[in-house]
Amino acid sequence: MKTLFTMLLVLLCTGIARAAIHTETVEYKHGDTTLEGFVAYDDSLKSARPGVLIVHQWKGLTDYEKKRAEMLAQLGYVAFAADIYGKGVRPKTTEEAGAQAGKFKSNRDLLRARVRAGLDALRKQPQLDPKRIAAIGYCFGGTTVIELARSGADIAGVVSFHGGLDSPKPEDGRNIKCKVLALQGADDPFVPAKDLAAFEDEMRNAGVDWQLIKYGGAVHSFTDWDAGSLNLKGAAYNEKADKRSWEHMKLFFGEIFR
Amino acid sequence: MKTLFTMLLVLLCTGIARAAIHTETVEYKHGDTTLEGFVAYDDSLKSARPGVLIVHQWKGLTDYEKKRAEMLAQLGYVAFAADIYGKGVRPKTTEEAGAQAGKFKSNRDLLRARVRAGLDALRKQPQLDPKRIAAIGYCFGGTTVIELARSGADIAGVVSFHGGLDSPKPEDGRNIKCKVLALQGADDPFVPAKDLAAFEDEMRNAGVDWQLIKYGGAVHSFTDWDAGSLNLKGAAYNEKADKRSWEHMKLFFGEIFR
Repeated sequence: MKTLFTMLLVLLCTGIARAAIHTETVEYKHGDTTLEGFVAYDDSLKSARPGVLIVHQWKGLTDYEKKRAEMLAQLGYVAFAADIYGKGVRPKTTEEAGAQAGKFKSNRDLLRARVRAGLDALRKQPQLDPKRIAAIGYCFGGTTVIELARSGADIAGVVSFHGGLDSPKPEDGRNIKCKVLALQGADDPFVPAKDLAAFEDEMRNAGVDWQLIKYGGAVHSFTDWDAGSLNLKGAAYNEKADKRSWEHMKLFFGEIFR
Repeated sequence: MKTLFTMLLVLLCTGIARAAIHTETVEYKHGDTTLEGFVAYDDSLKSARPGVLIVHQWKGLTDYEKKRAEMLAQLGYVAFAADIYGKGVRPKTTEEAGAQAGKFKSNRDLLRARVRAGLDALRKQPQLDPKRIAAIGYCFGGTTVIELARSGADIAGVVSFHGGLDSPKPEDGRNIKCKVLALQGADDPFVPAKDLAAFEDEMRNAGVDWQLIKYGGAVHSFTDWDAGSLNLKGAAYNEKADKRSWEHMKLFFGEIFR
């Protein structure tokens, strides 16, 4: 028995050593606007696999989202980190980030169109199983993937990590066809109780298949390694909540990609 | 490779066939009161293992909790379904159930003492790894395991399934040493928003490591196979929420029993 397990272990380790994550910058278009996304997948796998669209935080597509794409590729998915703002639009300051995020949050139709352009780009990946697609997003990206769901996108599910959940048109909840998982810091000052209550009502009234998880002690940006550790500022990394939310996402994927 | 997997499969199946869940009724005492619990474990396993205390719904210890104990035994835990009410006290009607549950919910000291008697009975199981103990409870039992935590019990974690979360002494949250996971139906009319908000404040103010999960479309009793399917009555089985909450519990155990 012991020998058998040792043999298996060796075979598995050889397999892991062979696994190579391919990453690549991908230009794509929304109308006349050029967008610059990022794809990651394990090119040692040969079969079609589920795809995960990743939508960035308010500073645009950064190394953070690229790292998440690689982590998803290691799980066996084809991951595509979308670019909502446009090629080269990568805010350096919070003021610039606020201006860019505000531009899209105040124009949800534009936001939906941009994220759907990203979804189309993911759909072009040859490794993709087109029947198994999800979208995840962080902060501004969390808001964005919920808007993608509200646009009626034909995907399996969306996961919002510390996203703003407010909607200027709550009746659009009725367009949602996919499953929704919202992961929130219980002490997030940027997503107040009234927004959570409105989100719950939107989901409830529309009969959506939804779940909400609150992580005690976590504030905004709890998954962002670069957010510091000062809860007092209202945005901070929280290792426990980060790891738990990643596991909750994996469990959700296990269900929707079955 | 294929041969190896076949061999492994045969070995695993042989193992599964050998696995035998031992179950047994266990009498134990709280003062002069005799209580009648139920233990389940896999007696093909030889090593010490984590223990899970299970606390029943308002009708007392029934086949429902015994089935959950067997399910936990199949996961490799030693499971002990406690008896809070006393040997032979098994309410048949909702009136009787309400009276029994009310007696303990209005006397939290008595409730804590009774559940601690169950915990002591679990601690006597020879298969137990005493450093890895959790408690789960359903409905009245959910309330009870949170009270167990509020009593300062030295265990790893508690999981409440559709439990009432109110507390007559919110300051007792400060006694909590273990991790807390509360699993709620988002449409549960028996656990109103104000109770959830008070629970969150209790956990927050006490600095507890806590998580709350809300299942959209689920009402009270969502894990109870015998609760019917009529959401309108405020209590109904919900297969999705049942399965998801069980997986969330397993994930929580994976973390706290590491």
